[in-house]
Amino acid sequence: MRISALSAASGVSVPTIKYYLREGLLPQGQTTSQTQARYDDDHVARLRLIRALVDVAGLSLAQVRDVVTRLDDPPESWHDVLGIAHGAAVAGPTGVPITHVADARALLADLGWQVDEHTPALAQLQRATEALADAGLDVGPERLAVYARAAHAVAEADLDGLPRTSPAEAGRHVVLGTLLYEPLLLALRRLAHEDVSGARYGRARATPPRRSAR
Amino acid sequence: MRISALSAASGVSVPTIKYYLREGLLPQGQTTSQTQARYDDDHVARLRLIRALVDVAGLSLAQVRDVVTRLDDPPESWHDVLGIAHGAAVAGPTGVPITHVADARALLADLGWQVDEHTPALAQLQRATEALADAGLDVGPERLAVYARAAHAVAEADLDGLPRTSPAEAGRHVVLGTLLYEPLLLALRRLAHEDVSGARYGRARATPPRRSAR
Repeated sequence: MRISALSAASGVSVPTIKYYLREGLLPQGQTTSQTQARYDDDHVARLRLIRALVDVAGLSLAQVRDVVTRLDDPPESWHDVLGIAHGAAVAGPTGVPITHVADARALLADLGWQVDEHTPALAQLQRATEALADAGLDVGPERLAVYARAAHAVAEADLDGLPRTSPAEAGRHVVLGTLLYEPLLLALRRLAHEDVSGARYGRARATPPRRSAR
Repeated sequence: MRISALSAASGVSVPTIKYYLREGLLPQGQTTSQTQARYDDDHVARLRLIRALVDVAGLSLAQVRDVVTRLDDPPESWHDVLGIAHGAAVAGPTGVPITHVADARALLADLGWQVDEHTPALAQLQRATEALADAGLDVGPERLAVYARAAHAVAEADLDGLPRTSPAEAGRHVVLGTLLYEPLLLALRRLAHEDVSGARYGRARATPPRRSAR
């Protein structure tokens, strides 16, 4: 298909497609003349992936480039496949580096989890607990245990869901699954808040909650 | 304290503090002369909160403003307290609006959860499931059940952890807890991936996984 058809099929505008081509996020099409190229379904799939990573997972274009580069050249061992997803989006929105992860390591040791000491998610955990402490919210052991149990159950289901065809295909699922199931989990948590709150404090309400700032 | 001491206490630079003052994110200090004002511990706490919302929760400054405005004027009923957190960060990174949430509603009906039909998290759920489908990852009923059970357990722990002092104080906890526990949950999920993967596929590895894109 031509670029206009690719745009229609993917819902991504032609200027944006051209930008992704220039930035190397999207592979070049097959050149058919000096000014035209032909694209196929792989391009449609890649564009949908880019938009999902940007719109839903909230990655920057630099992070998207990192993810798709890894997807195009996945590692060959099953355990390393998981690593390719975890490097993405780990620096956080402002890319603040975390240099000490001692507390996070101690916390995982309490849980009995075994992870590589260089794994990027340790820095995420460190940053998350520090931010909670800074805001005056303590992560008590009971609450942490509930979170850890929930996260572990979800992770087991995630690994159960991996295709057993090849590390490359599994890698695609891991990268997309790691990033795209995150918004699902967060949305369900917020909805569960409302369900639990309604059951505890009463749900008699015909209109949405009053929003003082609107 | 003066603005320089406020900067030292909060770790936020003086120009950034002045920017937050101009933007109304931070209340003005008590004026002591034409060019000076005095700040207190509430300003330090507010600055830490703003940084946590930006750096950890990944909110834009406009979203931060919305959250702190709600915090300053919380609703009075316990159930509505939860709503003030759920309006934040719900539009997603690019603010793509979601106009149909029928699938998400059906999904919640299957789970037996009762939520307001206008609740913003329904749009989040809709967007998350659409993105997964677009990427070729189906949310099967088994996986969804695991996610829903995990989210519900976490939500119950979250509500157990709310202070019973006043709706205003609970509101602060709800807003911060909704946003700041999200990175904790996501970090734990990634670490659990690694723990589960190591247990299943072997964790003999002295170095971090090979990163093809680095």
